Amino acid sequence: MTVPKAKRRALTYADAGVDLDARRRFVESIREIARSTHGPEVLSGVGPFAGLFQLGDYRAPVLVSSTDSVGTKVKIASLLGRFDTIGVDLVHQNVNDILALGAEPLFFLDYIASATLDAEEKMALVRGVASACRDVGCALIGGETADMPGVYAPGDLDLVGFVVGVVERDAIIDGSTIGAGDALLGLPSSGLHTNGFALVRQVFSVGVGGDAAEERARLERSYPELTSQADLSQAEGATPSRSSSAKGRSASGGGQALGETLLTPHRGYYNALKLALADVKGIAHITGGGLIDNVPRMLPDGLGARLDRAAWPAPPIFDLIQREGGIDEAEMFRTFNMGLGLVLAVDPSDVDAVRSAVPDALVVGEVVRQEGAERVAID
Amino acid sequence: MTVPKAKRRALTYADAGVDLDARRRFVESIREIARSTHGPEVLSGVGPFAGLFQLGDYRAPVLVSSTDSVGTKVKIASLLGRFDTIGVDLVHQNVNDILALGAEPLFFLDYIASATLDAEEKMALVRGVASACRDVGCALIGGETADMPGVYAPGDLDLVGFVVGVVERDAIIDGSTIGAGDALLGLPSSGLHTNGFALVRQVFSVGVGGDAAEERARLERSYPELTSQADLSQAEGATPSRSSSAKGRSASGGGQALGETLLTPHRGYYNALKLALADVKGIAHITGGGLIDNVPRMLPDGLGARLDRAAWPAPPIFDLIQREGGIDEAEMFRTFNMGLGLVLAVDPSDVDAVRSAVPDALVVGEVVRQEGAERVAID
Repeated sequence: MTVPKAKRRALTYADAGVDLDARRRFVESIREIARSTHGPEVLSGVGPFAGLFQLGDYRAPVLVSSTDSVGTKVKIASLLGRFDTIGVDLVHQNVNDILALGAEPLFFLDYIASATLDAEEKMALVRGVASACRDVGCALIGGETADMPGVYAPGDLDLVGFVVGVVERDAIIDGSTIGAGDALLGLPSSGLHTNGFALVRQVFSVGVGGDAAEERARLERSYPELTSQADLSQAEGATPSRSSSAKGRSASGGGQALGETLLTPHRGYYNALKLALADVKGIAHITGGGLIDNVPRMLPDGLGARLDRAAWPAPPIFDLIQREGGIDEAEMFRTFNMGLGLVLAVDPSDVDAVRSAVPDALVVGEVVRQEGAERVAID
Repeated sequence: MTVPKAKRRALTYADAGVDLDARRRFVESIREIARSTHGPEVLSGVGPFAGLFQLGDYRAPVLVSSTDSVGTKVKIASLLGRFDTIGVDLVHQNVNDILALGAEPLFFLDYIASATLDAEEKMALVRGVASACRDVGCALIGGETADMPGVYAPGDLDLVGFVVGVVERDAIIDGSTIGAGDALLGLPSSGLHTNGFALVRQVFSVGVGGDAAEERARLERSYPELTSQADLSQAEGATPSRSSSAKGRSASGGGQALGETLLTPHRGYYNALKLALADVKGIAHITGGGLIDNVPRMLPDGLGARLDRAAWPAPPIFDLIQREGGIDEAEMFRTFNMGLGLVLAVDPSDVDAVRSAVPDALVVGEVVRQEGAERVAID
């Protein structure tokens, strides 16, 4: 019960795995990266305890906020030692969540926790965050990098983001005007986005605590059917996601490597959609729970969705996962986005207007009166 | 390199450790808890993808935001199976950070990640968050509970918070008017608050991956010098922290148990200070880096601080840590708050006004012209 005497030399915080001087230097580098996202609304140099953002002129501003992490997608990044993409995921998944209410992103904060990540790896994470923030015109005004020896295993990390946006009260998109007969438009996803990784890791036996070299080899294996999402978008004449990693095909020919495909960043929809928001009645961001759980989240009671499976192409990664895992179709649809990252409810008379603003939006189904317990039918 | 065939039965997300149905039920319970923090500014029932907060009338509103986790204080909570206090820490540490700029808290979001915490444990965490939010009049408008099998070890967790507050542009407290001769007032801390736990865990060999029963026994040991912070405050006639756990002395007589003392929640200063903000020139929240690093963060260049060590009583836990760890005095002051959770810079003519609004504020030193490299001298 007594504290071991051998420990009784002059202990310092650095002995305990926390080097405050190195930390200060690191924080300075991070600040430099964040500065690239700042417009005049960010009051910098004011005080270091928090981030400050001057709100512009609004009639009845409603602040819209969301938080999420990239989940166990971190395991794939960590195995491959690639930390430049998941910061992009982090921003877009959160910005898409507030976009679902019609909000414009204002500012972002990130939280990175690990035991052993070095300064360069953490900076790669923050560069990804900053780059996606610049893409959507959102200021990175703060963050925290926590050294947590004892909580995180070597190589492990968590990456959490918080976004605040704003929408005029009368411009909130709340789905309340959606009615039976409205069209459902889908926007292509860039792949898994940030959900379903617990299942994917089981299917491919990666990031499940096995031998790291073997897990890495599985991620580096190329599959003929996997193509980079950028190639796919171009082939279809669709707007490529700005956040797509677009590293092209793997050197071994025969398609993209599994790890590369899995790490394709979450597509951000704010820029594509911002000019069409006035014509949209409801927005569902397809995250955990897939199309089955997320489409109903925008629908008023008594309404359901009928989706036409043939109306959109699913990125081949979903077929691969289903085949390799022997997963039921229904489970696929309640776990993954299956190729649609955002589903919009639009009055039939506004479909052309929305599609001219968002050329890669596809009509994928319609709103119907709900019959029975299931709210989403996929034909 | 191939995926093991044995795995090829119909895999579900639940098999992978993520049960979406249980998750939905849990989210409903959490929503119920969060609702207790909502005023009319929170637009609820609008849409489930994000939280909405209607901003009131301000002339030139500046949003102030901060994020932080409770760090490795989670290890102590986890060892003792006590999840009711660290949610309180989470709110106050973040709210204090924006208070340092003069901001009033508006809303809060939390992020809980773990592999094995059960619904009741997570709800205890959220109840702590909600309780502290109510205390400071801040709405809990969102959050995320991430199941991360493979990232967090059994029993481990991370708890991250995010606060947004508001301050009128001309009421920002930025320290710019601080001058030599200003008084430094200190507000008592309730103990370690949320910093220095990596070192404390080393000193007492707890939460460092040793035998859990032995680590728990060390935390349950009572030390005669440890008194509950609530007792201490009353003895001094000071306002007890509203967030103090105040569980009283341990059953074994002879003082409080170590674990109880370590888990005493971070004190929240917003209520104590909100009416005195107009008389305060600078606020330093004493977090990681202790008095040595944090007091200078509010000071203009060329100024330093002289603190009178005898001017305030340090909670006995700091003596105990120093003695058990054989830690240098200087290291103590750059790691821990040493009994002062907030330091204010106040014009000498306003000291009485501030002290009448905040009775437990003590004059602990003064602002001086900086001489040499050190910005904080402790006499």
